[in-house]
Amino acid sequence: MSGREYFIGIDLGGTNIKAVAIDKEGRVFCKKNTPTESEKGPEFVIEKIISLINNFADNGELVDRDLRAVGVAVAGVIDMEEGICKFLTNFPTKWKGISLAKRIEEGVGCQSFLINDVRAMTLAEKTFGAGKGVKNLVCVAVGTGIGGGIVINGDLYFGSEGFAGEIGHQTVEPYGIRCGCGNYGCLEALASGPSITSQAIRMVKQGATTIIRDLVDNDLNKITPRVIAEAARRGDKMAKEIWRREGYYLGIGIANLLVILNPEMVIIGGGVSRAFDLFFEEIKKTLRERVYVGPDVDKVKIVPGKLKDIAGAIGAATWAMLKVI
Amino acid sequence: MSGREYFIGIDLGGTNIKAVAIDKEGRVFCKKNTPTESEKGPEFVIEKIISLINNFADNGELVDRDLRAVGVAVAGVIDMEEGICKFLTNFPTKWKGISLAKRIEEGVGCQSFLINDVRAMTLAEKTFGAGKGVKNLVCVAVGTGIGGGIVINGDLYFGSEGFAGEIGHQTVEPYGIRCGCGNYGCLEALASGPSITSQAIRMVKQGATTIIRDLVDNDLNKITPRVIAEAARRGDKMAKEIWRREGYYLGIGIANLLVILNPEMVIIGGGVSRAFDLFFEEIKKTLRERVYVGPDVDKVKIVPGKLKDIAGAIGAATWAMLKVI
Repeated sequence: MSGREYFIGIDLGGTNIKAVAIDKEGRVFCKKNTPTESEKGPEFVIEKIISLINNFADNGELVDRDLRAVGVAVAGVIDMEEGICKFLTNFPTKWKGISLAKRIEEGVGCQSFLINDVRAMTLAEKTFGAGKGVKNLVCVAVGTGIGGGIVINGDLYFGSEGFAGEIGHQTVEPYGIRCGCGNYGCLEALASGPSITSQAIRMVKQGATTIIRDLVDNDLNKITPRVIAEAARRGDKMAKEIWRREGYYLGIGIANLLVILNPEMVIIGGGVSRAFDLFFEEIKKTLRERVYVGPDVDKVKIVPGKLKDIAGAIGAATWAMLKVI
Repeated sequence: MSGREYFIGIDLGGTNIKAVAIDKEGRVFCKKNTPTESEKGPEFVIEKIISLINNFADNGELVDRDLRAVGVAVAGVIDMEEGICKFLTNFPTKWKGISLAKRIEEGVGCQSFLINDVRAMTLAEKTFGAGKGVKNLVCVAVGTGIGGGIVINGDLYFGSEGFAGEIGHQTVEPYGIRCGCGNYGCLEALASGPSITSQAIRMVKQGATTIIRDLVDNDLNKITPRVIAEAARRGDKMAKEIWRREGYYLGIGIANLLVILNPEMVIIGGGVSRAFDLFFEEIKKTLRERVYVGPDVDKVKIVPGKLKDIAGAIGAATWAMLKVI
């Protein structure tokens, strides 16, 4: 019967809940996406996740299969052993202490496991995506924040308390702008999605020559990395400069990862990676300018993630699979 | 008979060759230290190493024991599989391509293995020193350069080409002074022994108030980290400021290691670690100011190495032991 099992992965985000059902080979049978509505409180959201999972069973391709385990990826700090939320980045504090894994187990009748969302993305890319078969790699997720995951000798590495991979909080400019975390000059403060957006808003306000103002009909609140990418692709100089800077700072952060960890591959995921083509060359240039000791920069593969916006959900399902098989 | 075996570790430095004989429990039976005389060429040095090893056998405590394997630690780039020197940091280029492991095997009649010197130090501290029993740790060696070694889940981690741990070449000040490697603002350029010395020389030349000038009888070429440490211990303000800066830059580099790797322990070795007490507090202060996401800084142990100047040799012997047992 084991060939007839499936695994559900949930990516519990502040805005949306994404869910996938996969088999052992990583085939995605179906995926679902629903608003989180986190303002309605943990109980509401937990019930929503449970019914989402239970509804999977009605799917045509899954009727003859058994749900073996569920994985849930969350942004924040979790107790992986106990399956308890300690601090969820985009949720109210009342999630603190909730035994999310246990609640889901009770609601769906199979084992459930928590994992950090970026570690999940890393696991997914390593197992079924861009990093398949690669022994040592680092995944850099650039979105609202910058997170990461590390694969060492084929296994996801968590560090002594599960925090390994917080590469967005390395200092790349000691006297740089303040990061949300409290430190100054973190990679995240310089190169996350909101950082790109605020650079663009500032420059537009200062009267820079750019088509971005037109693209958002003069409503600067509509500026997003996606808009800045569109402007750059249309040849806008200011937008291109923003993406060059993005590549420069990511390049410094990745250069540090190369000398410290000597990975074969660096996978760039997260929403901002949709603009990969706009900053890739500057990353490579920065690596060539900064990495002299150790790895041959031109041999290290710097690639975009393959699993895109369901990488976290696939990774959560993969994590559950690894825990029960 | 296996309880009666011993292992020899050689630390082949640019100035001195250090050698130790140890048993499986890491007991050091005897140690030797002899000038390298690298100017006399590879053949001379290799013969010197071979006779050094062969002379160990005459030692009273070793006469009833069998030499099982030899490890050689070198600063630089090596082909560990083949035991070949590719680039030795403090040696002339004619060492390039020499099959050092094979030459030693022929000369002493047992298997021989090469390892990078800082990786060896890390292995020694992890197996028999400050990091005994610790699963995840980073070793930072501060001397002529800054190198490092990483232990992941109890094993030394080499990365995909053996370069993992080159933590001295992370960028901590993107527009900082140029490093010997070619990059700007490497940790090594800001916090290695020569960097400390050159700061002191510059400040003394500029007329700073300090007892250092007296300590070296006005001969600024005699300024070393050891002299600057002595001045600081006697209360010299300029010297204390140099050590504070040392702690600050090491603190940034270590903060990055904590968020990336989440180790339980950071061991600081190398010659400059003799001044550990003079920069430790500033490291801790910097970590508290810079590490907010992830590990609890006050739980991470920041400790000096225990095996001091024979850590590299003990690590080389340990590496040989791991390879044959």
